[in-house]
Amino acid sequence: MRREVSVAEYVEGVKSQSRARLAQAITLVESTNATHAKMAQSVLHELLPFSGRSIRIGITGVPGAGKSTFIDTFGTYLCDKGHRLAVLAIDPTSVRTRGSILGDKTRMERLSRMEGCFIRPSPSGGTLGGVARKTRESIVLCEAAGFDVILVETVGVGQSEGTVRSMVDFFLLLTITGAGDELQAFKKGVMELADAILVNKADGDNEQAAKELVSEFNHVLRHIPPGTSGWKTRAYACSARTGAQIEKIWEVISQFKDETTRSGQFERRRSEQQIEWLDSLLIEELKNSFHRHPGVSGRYSPVAQEVALGKKSAVAATEELLKIFRGEVKGDLC
Amino acid sequence: MRREVSVAEYVEGVKSQSRARLAQAITLVESTNATHAKMAQSVLHELLPFSGRSIRIGITGVPGAGKSTFIDTFGTYLCDKGHRLAVLAIDPTSVRTRGSILGDKTRMERLSRMEGCFIRPSPSGGTLGGVARKTRESIVLCEAAGFDVILVETVGVGQSEGTVRSMVDFFLLLTITGAGDELQAFKKGVMELADAILVNKADGDNEQAAKELVSEFNHVLRHIPPGTSGWKTRAYACSARTGAQIEKIWEVISQFKDETTRSGQFERRRSEQQIEWLDSLLIEELKNSFHRHPGVSGRYSPVAQEVALGKKSAVAATEELLKIFRGEVKGDLC
Repeated sequence: MRREVSVAEYVEGVKSQSRARLAQAITLVESTNATHAKMAQSVLHELLPFSGRSIRIGITGVPGAGKSTFIDTFGTYLCDKGHRLAVLAIDPTSVRTRGSILGDKTRMERLSRMEGCFIRPSPSGGTLGGVARKTRESIVLCEAAGFDVILVETVGVGQSEGTVRSMVDFFLLLTITGAGDELQAFKKGVMELADAILVNKADGDNEQAAKELVSEFNHVLRHIPPGTSGWKTRAYACSARTGAQIEKIWEVISQFKDETTRSGQFERRRSEQQIEWLDSLLIEELKNSFHRHPGVSGRYSPVAQEVALGKKSAVAATEELLKIFRGEVKGDLC
Repeated sequence: MRREVSVAEYVEGVKSQSRARLAQAITLVESTNATHAKMAQSVLHELLPFSGRSIRIGITGVPGAGKSTFIDTFGTYLCDKGHRLAVLAIDPTSVRTRGSILGDKTRMERLSRMEGCFIRPSPSGGTLGGVARKTRESIVLCEAAGFDVILVETVGVGQSEGTVRSMVDFFLLLTITGAGDELQAFKKGVMELADAILVNKADGDNEQAAKELVSEFNHVLRHIPPGTSGWKTRAYACSARTGAQIEKIWEVISQFKDETTRSGQFERRRSEQQIEWLDSLLIEELKNSFHRHPGVSGRYSPVAQEVALGKKSAVAATEELLKIFRGEVKGDLC
């Protein structure tokens, strides 16, 4: 066994932009081991003052939209321009193993060879809440390691968009021409979250159709509230394969950052996101405390069963369980 | 001041189908007074065995779809058939005053004069969670008072559909022909919740257009999962003004109840809804306990402020506040 890395070593390693140490620090943050969790919190606490100086971009796409290729092309473009890019993923659906790091590197081949790029797959397993928590903490670590563009990718469809939106500054929706996709995007309510919609694969024979879809989206976008107040969400055609319009996307994002920084919306959203994060952590931890309570843990299932069968009201059951949780059971007549 | 009504009087009054007592019992359930709340729980506990024997129908509509007229016509039809109908509303957006009872009676003029009908406006104020809780409890009371059809109406748009879906057996989406409405319905994700879509105002010059919209919906519905597993959600044209196809809607709902009862889906969903209700009450009460905790209540705001400003991580803040909540502060070095 190797010697344990100390908190100071994690902190210094990340600050000095060691990619190996950053990767280890993220592993620490993702660990479910209690000792690791305590250390992780110390590391995060030390690094927090060095975080925040990035643009955080969320990206989601309908199946087949070519998200990996887009990230590959867009990320390579950014690295060529001298940016340092971290790619994180949120996938609440799969329990991915370490092997998927390789998978991610394969699906973003050019990007994974870039000096300025760091690719990290989704933390494995857990609830969406748990996965989101780890991703938020990984963002802090990546920023402290000097990455100035953070790309958070949704892996499932329609499940984690809201969660990703709640941790990024700018939210990109990637789509393509073809049956049902537009509808998919609408019905999931994702369009309302987007700061830009990209119609990918606008190349060759498909270019004209892509441009028509862009017009259609722009028409629809006029009728729905924008993802960010004060910003006009628009659709753009691009091709990750040929690189067409990839530069334009970055221009749009840069303009977004400038405008929202000037209006104060940028900082306002980040503050709100911090409070949302706090509140969701509090709820998560309160639920954990509740269900781990020795009195509650044995009683919840039988009580829930009675509720499901209509033998006990949800209100009476809540009261009963909360009395156990608060330790009032013995002193109470009920 | 009148003498306080006793728990037994509430219970007997509701069971003997006294509308005045039912109205008082709902007021009791809606009260935020602690003594009333305790009494309300006793009343609910006594009446729970007499509840459940109804079909609970949720209804939502795009603005201008003519929801009030539809409920008026549909409800009058049901009362004429000998049903006893209770109309409840969920409106998380407005703090409505008692005066709105009159408002509700005016907008459903025929229905409000029917012997078998009971109309209750949305409980005033509070969070969606709180309003939902009161509505769920009102359903229990109405059922115990012998109402066999419960109609729960969403008043806002796009905010309470999921909540209403979680407390009803059958969910109706009312829409009309005209710009943007279809899109509105898609983007809110409401279509996925629906067990039937009604295109209202299918009369006169509009009949043909309504029928075309119905076809369009039926086409789209083939591509999305149904609101209830095993049930085929379909669209129908109707006219609340002329009464056309109103009977058909009730046939569809009756068929739904028969089929899902036979398949077991009806009881299965009700059981799941009870558990959801329990879990949402638990979260609500845990949050209340937390924020009312004397140590937490003074500390939450300053800590949240530090988090918003990026001076403290959400994780560290969560830990700090939970330690106060658990009473570990004095014994801990932090």
